[in-house]
Amino acid sequence: MPATVDPPAQPPVDPADRPVLDSSISDLLKRGPDGLICAVVQQHDTREVLMVGWMDDEALRRTLTTGRVTFWSRSRQEYWRKGDTSGHVQYVKAVALDCDGDAVLVQVDQVGAACHTGERTCFDALPLNAVVLSVAAGAGGRG
Amino acid sequence: MPATVDPPAQPPVDPADRPVLDSSISDLLKRGPDGLICAVVQQHDTREVLMVGWMDDEALRRTLTTGRVTFWSRSRQEYWRKGDTSGHVQYVKAVALDCDGDAVLVQVDQVGAACHTGERTCFDALPLNAVVLSVAAGAGGRG
Repeated sequence: MPATVDPPAQPPVDPADRPVLDSSISDLLKRGPDGLICAVVQQHDTREVLMVGWMDDEALRRTLTTGRVTFWSRSRQEYWRKGDTSGHVQYVKAVALDCDGDAVLVQVDQVGAACHTGERTCFDALPLNAVVLSVAAGAGGRG
Repeated sequence: MPATVDPPAQPPVDPADRPVLDSSISDLLKRGPDGLICAVVQQHDTREVLMVGWMDDEALRRTLTTGRVTFWSRSRQEYWRKGDTSGHVQYVKAVALDCDGDAVLVQVDQVGAACHTGERTCFDALPLNAVVLSVAAGAGGRG
């Protein structure tokens, strides 16, 4: 009597075959204690700062390779491709890393509102009172 | 013989008298695991994103009350008032908190270069290759 036959095994996935962020980029990242960098999202033409999100290496890889902005949600602890639920997609126009590797600036074309509240940007609703000095800017630049 | 006389005691500082960030603001902050929020600094007129820094409650309080941007330096673990060493002062024009309280947008008038490398912004030197889709933005806005 034949022994029970298992279904054909899938070939094991070699970890080297999994897509990973290029080491020429990941080596430059200075991640926070939670392993994340900050992603500043700016509308490419009007230059409005739309929102700030968070990315791990994989979220950055997806953002660079798919044309759509993907974040890591700190509150939900999952990947979050902007617009999949709301329709408010962010199409990537350009990405730049900052000088110390802890932030990226993502220039996008934003469909609809960037903020989940329906505001155009996440910074529209809570202006803070701030002292503004009356000084001539341009003074004091010493190099 | 008189007992040794200590110098007159300073009146104790009541902790309530120390300047602290107004609770109407601090109650809204959603700090990262290191107690910090992200500060995006934007040139107020050209709308260039100049840099990203980090603030604890006290750095935000100083930024709101002094007219000059102050960060918490994660690498040096100390407060850092932008421009004190370089002369590249950031004069505050406006500050806004984002919808979930983990980032502020600080609009400034930047004297000289924002980046310690001498570049105008911290995002000038490291553009990353990114896939840009050829799609008509505006499609897909579902509200």
